[in-house]
Amino acid sequence: MRALLFDVFGTCVDWRTSVAREAEALGLPGEPVADAWRARYQPQLETVRRGEREWVVLDVLHREALDDVLAELGLDLDPPQRDALTLAWHRLDPWPDTVAGLTRLKRRYALAPCSNGHIAQSVNLARHAGLPWDAILGAEIARAYKPDPVVYRASVAALGIEPGEAMMVAAHNADLAAAAECGLRTAFIARPGEHGPGQRSDLRAETEVDVEAGDFEALAAALGG
Amino acid sequence: MRALLFDVFGTCVDWRTSVAREAEALGLPGEPVADAWRARYQPQLETVRRGEREWVVLDVLHREALDDVLAELGLDLDPPQRDALTLAWHRLDPWPDTVAGLTRLKRRYALAPCSNGHIAQSVNLARHAGLPWDAILGAEIARAYKPDPVVYRASVAALGIEPGEAMMVAAHNADLAAAAECGLRTAFIARPGEHGPGQRSDLRAETEVDVEAGDFEALAAALGG
Repeated sequence: MRALLFDVFGTCVDWRTSVAREAEALGLPGEPVADAWRARYQPQLETVRRGEREWVVLDVLHREALDDVLAELGLDLDPPQRDALTLAWHRLDPWPDTVAGLTRLKRRYALAPCSNGHIAQSVNLARHAGLPWDAILGAEIARAYKPDPVVYRASVAALGIEPGEAMMVAAHNADLAAAAECGLRTAFIARPGEHGPGQRSDLRAETEVDVEAGDFEALAAALGG
Repeated sequence: MRALLFDVFGTCVDWRTSVAREAEALGLPGEPVADAWRARYQPQLETVRRGEREWVVLDVLHREALDDVLAELGLDLDPPQRDALTLAWHRLDPWPDTVAGLTRLKRRYALAPCSNGHIAQSVNLARHAGLPWDAILGAEIARAYKPDPVVYRASVAALGIEPGEAMMVAAHNADLAAAAECGLRTAFIARPGEHGPGQRSDLRAETEVDVEAGDFEALAAALGG
């Protein structure tokens, strides 16, 4: 095995707490805004996956969804503040184990996000959170959104390796199932607080995975790092 | 200014000494092989730039050129050794100031190669040489070769910034002239030993540049890092 590919939102970083904090700083109810914003994510991506709209960077989708969220919750914010809040998705904090685990794993493997975030968002996020990537792969190089298989295939191909030489690391079963279909190895990381205290899904691996670990330090230990 | 884009071969790493050493380890004359190999580089890229052949990763061009070099110099090497030697371009050593300078510059700016190397080569090289990139940009994301303007434009666009918010750093005047045409700022770094003791070109900036520096430490000092 030569490379590890990572889901980012939820797996490497705690988007809910980070987005809620930025919303609250603008006088909005934090968690309701974060949850309603994220709830629009998969339906938006689905319009691209089904070919109903062309691939666009995630900033565009996040900005559109924010208008809907504020309307639904009966909240107001002026357009420059909406633009600024959209960039909260570039400034998400890592889980406590993320940076130490990635640093250990990087000694042995090439590391890259295979995220639905675009390159600019991924670079800004990595600089904010201290994620030591070797390259930025994922949605933008494929101009498609996971779990479209082209995203996993393009990411592996960019590294010049075979799918079986890469492992997809994610806190989401659907992501891992799609990666496994493309021939990648898989690691499930439990992030039971991603959606807050009431989270009911993705509490454990529900698909066949190569590794199941409680955090990135445990993943590094499991992979001999 | 938000990001620095770097030429890699010659600017960040000493390809001649590194390739010569790997050639010598296989019983070949090191510097003649390195020089003859590199001499084929621009003519090969030109066939892609002129549209005579489709863009392919640099490994393919390097492997083809190696056959020509060995034939020209009357040298023999079996095919698996030719394949292995081609990957010498993934294992080039940095100039003595490169890693320290990049580390200083990274505190303030996002850093990425804007190289004619592909992503796999750039990742392997960065891991070998310790180059702390934030992303891998350049030829592969544009599927074109510098100085085609699309390479500079695609690299800047991937970072979500304007051309004037980026600076191209290179030891080659032609590269900087092309970047400046695209609206990027420019920094010339002197690498008078790139081609060995007889180097006669690219000894100093011959085009209008924003910064001219003797090495990456001096560049960091000039940029306030």
